[in-house]
Amino acid sequence: MKLTILGCYSATPRDNAHPTSQFLEVKGRHFLIDCGEGTQMQLRKYKLKFTKINHVFISHLHGDHFYGLIGFLSTLGILGRQKDLHVYGPKGLKEIITLQLRLTKSYNEYDIVFHELTSKKSELIFEDNKVAVYTIPLKHRVYTNGYLFKEKIGERKLEISKTAAYKEIEVCDYQNLKNGKDFILEDGTVIANELLTSDPSKPKSYAFCSDTKYKEDITEIIKNVDMLYHESTFLEDNADLAKKTMHSTALEAAKIAKMAEVKMLILGHYSSRYKNLKLFKQEAETVFENSVLGEEGVCYEI
Amino acid sequence: MKLTILGCYSATPRDNAHPTSQFLEVKGRHFLIDCGEGTQMQLRKYKLKFTKINHVFISHLHGDHFYGLIGFLSTLGILGRQKDLHVYGPKGLKEIITLQLRLTKSYNEYDIVFHELTSKKSELIFEDNKVAVYTIPLKHRVYTNGYLFKEKIGERKLEISKTAAYKEIEVCDYQNLKNGKDFILEDGTVIANELLTSDPSKPKSYAFCSDTKYKEDITEIIKNVDMLYHESTFLEDNADLAKKTMHSTALEAAKIAKMAEVKMLILGHYSSRYKNLKLFKQEAETVFENSVLGEEGVCYEI
Repeated sequence: MKLTILGCYSATPRDNAHPTSQFLEVKGRHFLIDCGEGTQMQLRKYKLKFTKINHVFISHLHGDHFYGLIGFLSTLGILGRQKDLHVYGPKGLKEIITLQLRLTKSYNEYDIVFHELTSKKSELIFEDNKVAVYTIPLKHRVYTNGYLFKEKIGERKLEISKTAAYKEIEVCDYQNLKNGKDFILEDGTVIANELLTSDPSKPKSYAFCSDTKYKEDITEIIKNVDMLYHESTFLEDNADLAKKTMHSTALEAAKIAKMAEVKMLILGHYSSRYKNLKLFKQEAETVFENSVLGEEGVCYEI
Repeated sequence: MKLTILGCYSATPRDNAHPTSQFLEVKGRHFLIDCGEGTQMQLRKYKLKFTKINHVFISHLHGDHFYGLIGFLSTLGILGRQKDLHVYGPKGLKEIITLQLRLTKSYNEYDIVFHELTSKKSELIFEDNKVAVYTIPLKHRVYTNGYLFKEKIGERKLEISKTAAYKEIEVCDYQNLKNGKDFILEDGTVIANELLTSDPSKPKSYAFCSDTKYKEDITEIIKNVDMLYHESTFLEDNADLAKKTMHSTALEAAKIAKMAEVKMLILGHYSSRYKNLKLFKQEAETVFENSVLGEEGVCYEI
């Protein structure tokens, strides 16, 4: 799992402070999470293959999270995309995008499949044989979801040194072994799968939570994730403002991380009023040690 | 008159190739012309006081000319703007912007006054005591206008060395002299205005033409302008493509400049297929000598 931050500032974008967008690679799938203005330029800047993206997840309809979507979709059309693109986000997104495509007389050869979300409960919204994606209902000034990306348990790992001991096991048997089947020798002896394979890698998980007020009940959904991005628009010095605008402080993000027992916390969605971002990390570390600053262009690997 | 180019590339934006947008200062008025994605970041990057902008002119509803408008308008709201902002552009623009403001639950303290254009003839769309703005009907794949910005003739210039010769002329008489009135001495002698003042500076003019196929009849509207920006998406090596997509080549832009007897031609809206922009200048110069390359961040003064 590889996460590249394309932008991690709140509200008004600047040349060196891009609004929210993230590019997530999970077992060969490429996901775009939020798409603030300028996201397509950021994807190019960091040389991310954005034609590989098949699924876009928009958290909520505030401009700093989706104003770059129409440009991204148009560029895919200009580049001649033919594959369907799936867009998940709040109700209203489809109307905004389709109106603009219609009035700009855009002709795209590919279909945009909208999945408009309205539920206030966590739900499975995408699944294939490698990954499942769930919503994380958040609490903000407008209807908002975070997203939880969970790898599925992979195949068992073949232990070649062990299979080699049995001449009867051939290459064509490998897939059955990876799938967990025992091997039966010609004389009827059963070789237990565990003797020939080892456990698959532990599936990884990533939770994206932006924007939200402090909301403890999300910890049930994001319990034990390997990596949590949780917005921290403010420091505790502006706790009142955080409450008023339904955002979180770095301390609150860290409390969520601790309570959910996640392995690592990435902070972001910084208010432009703060010049020294180290203070966010310092504040979070008082509660949760493995806190890092989200930084544009940085790739976080699990 | 000062023109700053914020972006001068066509179609798909890149980090170093921003879509069309220009910031024009005319006698203390600040105009934004087109507003491709990322325009607000470019305004900040080049330290242009974008809160001073009261009028935005959008040429046509292709994304590379207006996808940055909603972000720009939202940022003005966040910054607490109270003054009206006037937006000129094709019919449909109002629907696109208001839908997004409604669905994002944006509350702006300022009013956006939309002036939707539908005429196919040149018309005066804005005028005050210093500047007049006219449309330049262009021919593109969608309804498109260029814009002509004309300074009005200013006040006559007071020649202090000459007025000093008459003790009866006091400071309170200056404005009448600047307005062109003769001065009458107590004995009834008329001092002709031309003896006390000189002609005002010649009013400057700027014409913005993007996007359009080669269209000779615009030369009547832009005749003798001091500065012409004319799109040159292609070179003559792609003249067929220019025709098909209703764009112009650098040579065609230069022909228009020559025919309209303008003083200076700025090229732009380059297709990203060209790596060597000098070729645009070279091609234009074969027809019109004072051709320059539009470059991001460069300020052109008249």
